[in-house]
Amino acid sequence: MGCIQSFREFCDRSKNTNVRLSLPAVCIVWQTAMIILFGVFIRYDEESNPHWIEHRKEANISSDIENDFYFRYPSFQDVHVMIFVGFGFLMTFLKRYSFGAVGFNFLIAAFCLQWALLMQGWFHSLDYTDGKIKIGVESLINADFCVAGCLIAYGAVLGKVSPVQLMVLTLFGITLFAVEEYIILSVIHARDAGGSMVIHTFGAYYGLAISWMLYRPNLDQSSRLQGSVYHSDVFAMIGTLFLWMFWPSFNSAIADHGDGQHRAAINTYLALAATVLTTVAFSSLFQKHGKLDMVHIQNSTLAGGVAVGTAAEFMLMPYGSLIVGFCCGVISTLGYIFLTPFMEKHLKIQDTCGVHNLHAMPGVIGGIVGAITAAAASDSVYGKEGLINTFDFEGDFEEMTPTRQGGHQAAGICVAVCFGVGGGIMVGFILRLPIWGDPADDNCFDDEAYWEVPDEEESIPPVLQYNNHMLNKDV
Amino acid sequence: MGCIQSFREFCDRSKNTNVRLSLPAVCIVWQTAMIILFGVFIRYDEESNPHWIEHRKEANISSDIENDFYFRYPSFQDVHVMIFVGFGFLMTFLKRYSFGAVGFNFLIAAFCLQWALLMQGWFHSLDYTDGKIKIGVESLINADFCVAGCLIAYGAVLGKVSPVQLMVLTLFGITLFAVEEYIILSVIHARDAGGSMVIHTFGAYYGLAISWMLYRPNLDQSSRLQGSVYHSDVFAMIGTLFLWMFWPSFNSAIADHGDGQHRAAINTYLALAATVLTTVAFSSLFQKHGKLDMVHIQNSTLAGGVAVGTAAEFMLMPYGSLIVGFCCGVISTLGYIFLTPFMEKHLKIQDTCGVHNLHAMPGVIGGIVGAITAAAASDSVYGKEGLINTFDFEGDFEEMTPTRQGGHQAAGICVAVCFGVGGGIMVGFILRLPIWGDPADDNCFDDEAYWEVPDEEESIPPVLQYNNHMLNKDV
Amino acid sequence: MGCIQSFREFCDRSKNTNVRLSLPAVCIVWQTAMIILFGVFIRYDEESNPHWIEHRKEANISSDIENDFYFRYPSFQDVHVMIFVGFGFLMTFLKRYSFGAVGFNFLIAAFCLQWALLMQGWFHSLDYTDGKIKIGVESLINADFCVAGCLIAYGAVLGKVSPVQLMVLTLFGITLFAVEEYIILSVIHARDAGGSMVIHTFGAYYGLAISWMLYRPNLDQSSRLQGSVYHSDVFAMIGTLFLWMFWPSFNSAIADHGDGQHRAAINTYLALAATVLTTVAFSSLFQKHGKLDMVHIQNSTLAGGVAVGTAAEFMLMPYGSLIVGFCCGVISTLGYIFLTPFMEKHLKIQDTCGVHNLHAMPGVIGGIVGAITAAAASDSVYGKEGLINTFDFEGDFEEMTPTRQGGHQAAGICVAVCFGVGGGIMVGFILRLPIWGDPADDNCFDDEAYWEVPDEEESIPPVLQYNNHMLNKDV
Repeated sequence: MGCIQSFREFCDRSKNTNVRLSLPAVCIVWQTAMIILFGVFIRYDEESNPHWIEHRKEANISSDIENDFYFRYPSFQDVHVMIFVGFGFLMTFLKRYSFGAVGFNFLIAAFCLQWALLMQGWFHSLDYTDGKIKIGVESLINADFCVAGCLIAYGAVLGKVSPVQLMVLTLFGITLFAVEEYIILSVIHARDAGGSMVIHTFGAYYGLAISWMLYRPNLDQSSRLQGSVYHSDVFAMIGTLFLWMFWPSFNSAIADHGDGQHRAAINTYLALAATVLTTVAFSSLFQKHGKLDMVHIQNSTLAGGVAVGTAAEFMLMPYGSLIVGFCCGVISTLGYIFLTPFMEKHLKIQDTCGVHNLHAMPGVIGGIVGAITAAAASDSVYGKEGLINTFDFEGDFEEMTPTRQGGHQAAGICVAVCFGVGGGIMVGFILRLPIWGDPADDNCFDDEAYWEVPDEEESIPPVLQYNNHMLNKDV
Repeated sequence: MGCIQSFREFCDRSKNTNVRLSLPAVCIVWQTAMIILFGVFIRYDEESNPHWIEHRKEANISSDIENDFYFRYPSFQDVHVMIFVGFGFLMTFLKRYSFGAVGFNFLIAAFCLQWALLMQGWFHSLDYTDGKIKIGVESLINADFCVAGCLIAYGAVLGKVSPVQLMVLTLFGITLFAVEEYIILSVIHARDAGGSMVIHTFGAYYGLAISWMLYRPNLDQSSRLQGSVYHSDVFAMIGTLFLWMFWPSFNSAIADHGDGQHRAAINTYLALAATVLTTVAFSSLFQKHGKLDMVHIQNSTLAGGVAVGTAAEFMLMPYGSLIVGFCCGVISTLGYIFLTPFMEKHLKIQDTCGVHNLHAMPGVIGGIVGAITAAAASDSVYGKEGLINTFDFEGDFEEMTPTRQGGHQAAGICVAVCFGVGGGIMVGFILRLPIWGDPADDNCFDDEAYWEVPDEEESIPPVLQYNNHMLNKDV
Repeated sequence: MGCIQSFREFCDRSKNTNVRLSLPAVCIVWQTAMIILFGVFIRYDEESNPHWIEHRKEANISSDIENDFYFRYPSFQDVHVMIFVGFGFLMTFLKRYSFGAVGFNFLIAAFCLQWALLMQGWFHSLDYTDGKIKIGVESLINADFCVAGCLIAYGAVLGKVSPVQLMVLTLFGITLFAVEEYIILSVIHARDAGGSMVIHTFGAYYGLAISWMLYRPNLDQSSRLQGSVYHSDVFAMIGTLFLWMFWPSFNSAIADHGDGQHRAAINTYLALAATVLTTVAFSSLFQKHGKLDMVHIQNSTLAGGVAVGTAAEFMLMPYGSLIVGFCCGVISTLGYIFLTPFMEKHLKIQDTCGVHNLHAMPGVIGGIVGAITAAAASDSVYGKEGLINTFDFEGDFEEMTPTRQGGHQAAGICVAVCFGVGGGIMVGFILRLPIWGDPADDNCFDDEAYWEVPDEEESIPPVLQYNNHMLNKDV
């Protein structure tokens, strides 16, 4: 730890947030690399290819409507909204960091999804006959999922890092994500349709570990900006609601066609509804005068969607979903009230958006719920064919039983946590190098550092301007 | 009336808006009750169940794409956005009640949809073989519809009630809704795909009757807060536009597969377009200097969608939809200009959002349009099979004729109005009890009562802060 | 030019923005005309008609899911959101013109789509057996596309025209659009699924030509209002993101069923992602201290979607999409930095939203990319049937070759530019007549002119109000 300490001190030199060379350089070099790699590796899959018409006839598919596009595109678009509007606006709650919240979210997501198509492609959809990655709508959804992992990590360091650091965080994040996902889904053969483990647990611990590595002892110098104003809280609700509403699409987007997607959507819908009530209950219970706190409403109401991610496609049952949602609303709200201050004070983890309460804890709970639900699966509930279909007991895993599947699911949680924490520490080391243009402690949470912020002097105080204005004209 | 008056006086004691015990208690007890009732009653239907794969083969369905999920899920998500973002943001127009508008909307909708799944399930989709309610995507849509009824009622009392009162309003509202819906759709056999009668007429009169029961003679003490500011009007437009855009999905979501959904979407699209033009026309015509009023643009532009709800799936014809939209834009705008002030002054109905103009009148018009269109239906226009399909002249109603169907439709309107007014008066009595923590007259329309509102002092005046800030740093 | 100059002077009389008679008159007369024309001409097509059930059997269609509604409705709704929320909010960036941005966008779009259904119907889907236009979901999408053309033109004149002028601009714009579209798609047989030429090039040059005709030499009198404030920039990001996210739906909405829609969505998704990175790079590179400019992030990030419109359904290849996006991010950002000021100073074109950078240049690039991609098409890449399908080499165009198709595509660009510039000059002449109630030079970009703007005095300064408020009550 002494070693880390001295490394930290070495890096805390006078900060310069000018990213005029580094940011353009990173963006252009990486985008150029993407073009080259896409040229070498990425092609359309058989359903997005003009040869589909021939393929359809060969495969005896009667109608174009059976193209995977029509099964998944509406869900894809919902997920897309969650990534860009949901995550982006959820983070606008800070009074002077809305540009950074929405804008950097936009930037890293756009880079992220290209790199994710490549990384996930190499691991999951490489066509060994020609060495190409074949992409279709499901690849786009998976890329968006991958992006979600990195945006969760962004939530933990929001306002404290430069856009260049975010690009680096993202580059490594996606790489780690793709490996972790491959191990959990393909090697361990855990199921994780909504990504409780793969996306949320990994993303949150990755971000928290980075935040721990980038600990700023004097962050209270920016405390004047580390809160919301009335309008910024309303903007953040746009993010909350789009995440909340479209979460059923998130958890069902890559589930099995037919009953799989159908059930995943229902379970998520129910879990989220229950979460809202317990969040409100505990937010009111622990505040003076019973007043509700917008931080809880904006964040904890979403915990149910995270926690139902793994089990959403299983026979969790409607009441099971409600129970999961109930518990997560409670745990997440209590986390914001008690755990976040504790972690900042005693564990030196500054978690701007509280991703530990919204993603880490519910993600782990989701993994556990998934393991239990899988272990409890039976022929009588799923039907013989249904069981095979739902858990994909085919190929190498034909001999798998529900009980063993439960164990594999549990192993998946561990992998996600390890990759998150380990990867975060490693990347945190890199991000501490004094070359990334991150803001000084008294300059955090401030759009001034990286954005041309409009000059408000002309428009404030509106009373005066308005009055002058009325005097000057003859309506 | 003297009796009501003295009851009112009894209840007007000094107000205490502390809901620290009552709100958590209601949320937790009710959510727990939901879990128990869901455990006893709610199961997946055959299309969201792993046995679907067997069912498909038995029913000779060739593809997973014929799962009802793919027919209705995109529309469901649009409806979901209308409920949470549409209604929520539409009510953010008040300058200091945005948290309450979006937040309480969120809370009651989340409770509402659970209770609606149960109530509607008992009436509509109880499987008598095992005593269970089987839910699928159509149930979720119907639950969201049910929620819409209660949110409309919330519009009438916005800013004047406590969250506990809203929960009570919702509990009874859903119960009444389910009974009323059962009578109108199943007993009377009226058709109402977009819910002009079932949702809008009922919801609006329910809310207006409650508002009448909760009449506050001294509400002008809060008049400083009963208006908008520039940004709150822009936030409200987010609600307006999402309602406006997705209304075609609302009216087509549970219409018949194929041409039914298709036609309902087209009719709604057209009616809404026409409404915008007449709303703008009359808003400009009745204002000094011809300036437009945001209240009209935010609300009256939606009246066409309400009024075309019942007839959307019928052969209303494109020009018919335009005529309905034309009239409703006029009527709704005039309602805001003349009727709302009249109702407040002379009928003691304080209608915060003007739901009488946006939902009650257009809803009744919609019911009438539906009755006329149904009565005018003929084999030549619909085709023999088309007529049976569209009006569901099957089973007990095989002998039904279009003319008689028109009469049944008209009966439906009366049922909706009676349930709304009667239920509202009854629930209004309950809500007047002095135990619910509602705000005093000078404390209405103010988020301070129930929310931790961020302290603006630090951030205003931005000019100074900004300047100080610039001085303090060396960019 | 002297002639134009004296015409301009003749029109620059004292301005009166009172539209109390003209705006209602235009709205009501035109809406009435729509009703009559719809009554005479517009009917449901065979898929939105109750006879569909018979048609289905005759055509041997096995399921309702093959109704075109299910192929296109989700994309339609995404496009609808782009039109009303996307374009509307993108223009809210001005500090005091948010009502006009969202509200007039709403008004003209609602009129536009009705008139577009008629105009496009006459040219494209008139049923010669009965002289009726048959509409279905594809007609609605095409109408929305048509609207997009006019809204782009609105972007060029934002804040400088009256709502009556906008209605006139729209009426002529749609008429020109329908003719231009007919020539490009049907006569020349160019393909343009995403409308790079038909929508963006035409719309932008139409708006720029009008803006040139309406040149205001003293517009700097309104310069105090021609900028953004912090919150208005966040509102604008709502527009940006919904446009960005749903652009894949825009470009794929009317592409061929199956692989056509699938491929168009993928290409657009990728092009847009690349644009974000180069926009950020060049925005940072050309600003002092490397700070990002919200204008670029709001606008230039979308250029890739425009530029990939024509070629999105072709075999552009994933890396091709990235290259197009890469270049457009650069060109569009440089356009905002260098070209917009140049055009205002030297060409007398005042382009409020910079549509030249966002739509005109990327639109032309899109046309060129489309021409090249079409000319390079081959049997080996598309397959024999795929080539015919993708380029519609059927009927009169059976003998068409890819090379010739490339030439036709190029001809399409010229038609779009000519119609845009020519039509804009013509309509600009009309709009200079001193009868439309447009604002004076010192009154531009101000909602006061046409809207009842809420009085902020009561709510500002919030500090004081808030404090008074706290003193007055006993919480």
